[in-house]
Amino acid sequence: MQLPICQEIELQLQGSVLHLTLNRPQARNAMNLALVQEVMSVFDAIAERRDIRAVVLRGSEGNFCAGGDIKDMASARQAYQQGQVDPLFELNRAFGRMITQVNNAPQVVITLLEGAVLGGGLGLACIADIAIADINAQFGLPETSLGLPPAQIAPFVVDRIGLTQARRLVLTGARFNGYEARELGLVHFVSDSPEKMDALLEQQLQQIRCCAPEANRITKALLLSVGKIEHEALLDQAAAQFSAAVMGEEGVEGTQAFVEKRAARWAQSA
Amino acid sequence: MQLPICQEIELQLQGSVLHLTLNRPQARNAMNLALVQEVMSVFDAIAERRDIRAVVLRGSEGNFCAGGDIKDMASARQAYQQGQVDPLFELNRAFGRMITQVNNAPQVVITLLEGAVLGGGLGLACIADIAIADINAQFGLPETSLGLPPAQIAPFVVDRIGLTQARRLVLTGARFNGYEARELGLVHFVSDSPEKMDALLEQQLQQIRCCAPEANRITKALLLSVGKIEHEALLDQAAAQFSAAVMGEEGVEGTQAFVEKRAARWAQSA
Amino acid sequence: MQLPICQEIELQLQGSVLHLTLNRPQARNAMNLALVQEVMSVFDAIAERRDIRAVVLRGSEGNFCAGGDIKDMASARQAYQQGQVDPLFELNRAFGRMITQVNNAPQVVITLLEGAVLGGGLGLACIADIAIADINAQFGLPETSLGLPPAQIAPFVVDRIGLTQARRLVLTGARFNGYEARELGLVHFVSDSPEKMDALLEQQLQQIRCCAPEANRITKALLLSVGKIEHEALLDQAAAQFSAAVMGEEGVEGTQAFVEKRAARWAQSA
Repeated sequence: MQLPICQEIELQLQGSVLHLTLNRPQARNAMNLALVQEVMSVFDAIAERRDIRAVVLRGSEGNFCAGGDIKDMASARQAYQQGQVDPLFELNRAFGRMITQVNNAPQVVITLLEGAVLGGGLGLACIADIAIADINAQFGLPETSLGLPPAQIAPFVVDRIGLTQARRLVLTGARFNGYEARELGLVHFVSDSPEKMDALLEQQLQQIRCCAPEANRITKALLLSVGKIEHEALLDQAAAQFSAAVMGEEGVEGTQAFVEKRAARWAQSA
Repeated sequence: MQLPICQEIELQLQGSVLHLTLNRPQARNAMNLALVQEVMSVFDAIAERRDIRAVVLRGSEGNFCAGGDIKDMASARQAYQQGQVDPLFELNRAFGRMITQVNNAPQVVITLLEGAVLGGGLGLACIADIAIADINAQFGLPETSLGLPPAQIAPFVVDRIGLTQARRLVLTGARFNGYEARELGLVHFVSDSPEKMDALLEQQLQQIRCCAPEANRITKALLLSVGKIEHEALLDQAAAQFSAAVMGEEGVEGTQAFVEKRAARWAQSA
Repeated sequence: MQLPICQEIELQLQGSVLHLTLNRPQARNAMNLALVQEVMSVFDAIAERRDIRAVVLRGSEGNFCAGGDIKDMASARQAYQQGQVDPLFELNRAFGRMITQVNNAPQVVITLLEGAVLGGGLGLACIADIAIADINAQFGLPETSLGLPPAQIAPFVVDRIGLTQARRLVLTGARFNGYEARELGLVHFVSDSPEKMDALLEQQLQQIRCCAPEANRITKALLLSVGKIEHEALLDQAAAQFSAAVMGEEGVEGTQAFVEKRAARWAQSA
């Protein structure tokens, strides 16, 4: 499937890696409904593309994402007052659908976090398979200070860093930097320069290239099922997938390459 | 609703903050059934009071809480032998009900932990939205060394710090200090002096005052529902709450204050 | 029940501690089906033995365990091609059954981790009540680089260290040492010499001896039930166990010893 034409985000496909840049720098890449829908259409388009093995998410001009767009919220409030079927519900819910979709993407999703990583931006960071933060990035959930609940985000924050830290951060609106984000377990790596961030990204992409795309897809889905499917049933399903993988193309190539002490086919591509 | 008159605990309402002190210093504030019932009656009384935005829990005279009261247990054992409907079950279960109730309080609950934080005292620390520990506080779960399971506490310990550390701590009765408690994720902040603890508390209360009370109440309930309500249903419910909040008093005030670059109404009160 | 006679593992009973050594050094203690079945028969045999209070798991000759045995997998693949009812499913699933059984053992399970702790070896480390790692141990999940999912292991990794770190480690095949394993929460202690590891082990065994065996058994089962049994029902069950324990042999001895300021009976044995 072809990649869609987008206005609010920028796409660049480099070999097996899709770079997706939130591109509303005038609003510190705050997400409006148009942007949310574009992101979803991109992940729709790549759902079956095994040639795309990783997606790198970042924001333009020094910020990752400042949250939801306030102008959009104002319009939705107006529409609400004009009697439309709850447009505020729809606006908010669409954002939750986007995070859920990106969380479940078959590709390895990497976020590069710098500048503002606020509200919905922090929510998006919470579903990265690999999150790399600039040490000076500004993380925070300011919603309740605006009189609003971080409705679609809070559940992903709990899943990411646990209830203990989530309850403190959300109920105080605390700000924190990249170093603390790593301590909290929100991100995996911290960088203190753009060069370091590039190097960390390249290192991770190299490792991902060594892992078989279909095995990674199955494994990611398995990880995301833990606690949702009953334990024994999950292990039964996993054993069936294991057996299929051993007899499948990747399993044959992978174990053969291992015995022959050579790189597997998928580790040779860019 | 009025605050109840109490014997085993001390109450002090300062502006929007209720200070609750466990006050059985002769027993290092070990909890007997009377104390447990008083705590529950306090949280019953404040359940609908949005003017009380935070509760600060501490113990008198240098200890937080040494656990369950042994005298109470001896009486319950005697009552058991005299044929009463299991008084040991009731004694234990009442304590679990109290922790559950405090966990679900609409207010932000802060614990100040010093001296003994043992058994049930540690259980109580596990449900704080913000936990501040003295570096020399003594944490531990000594139950199994007494031949007893930490029955009402263990589930809250697992929810707080995860199974990996909980199983070690509980099966070895290990003692640890405030610094380790922070490393384990049991507490959020460590203090090395009473002045530092006061300063940390004041800082957290300041931040809580910036957050809208009703938004905080809804958000806390949302956080506590994660993993208990199915994910998509939870996000639907949250979106409905978001919409109601945007159109509600706090949402209107909060976004207006933000645009006008002034403090919101709730951030001005004490 | 007698301990079974084993070929692939070595057993040594020292007082209340059973030492179990994976003993296939020529294969860095990679687990074949015979070894898996022997481990299960040992845990079957000790399921009711309250005199055995801890099991220490380690590998022979400097490695813990390099994962599943590749020869076994090759045979199972051949059997598959000859039309047997899915032997690859059975091989994989047996391993998951073993981890599940060891996870649920009534004894305190301690793993000593050095050298290779890879694939299934890492899975086994994930269910230790106490895990002690050599700083230079090599941890990693190389499965997807071989074109296979870490099928029976991944769920235990998520339960152990959380989804956030599990997704990164599994999708990149990252290697890490004992220090990082502690940072990730996979192990509890790190040692930088065999002497230190022995001392750490002895210290933990001392603490376990102070805890009553039956109380520990009940408590471990309680911990493992969190999130699987509904919260209130679990607390009800725990209160009934508490009451029975107070009236039982261990509870009477434990509280009496506490009052008399002497060691309880179980703390005196070796």
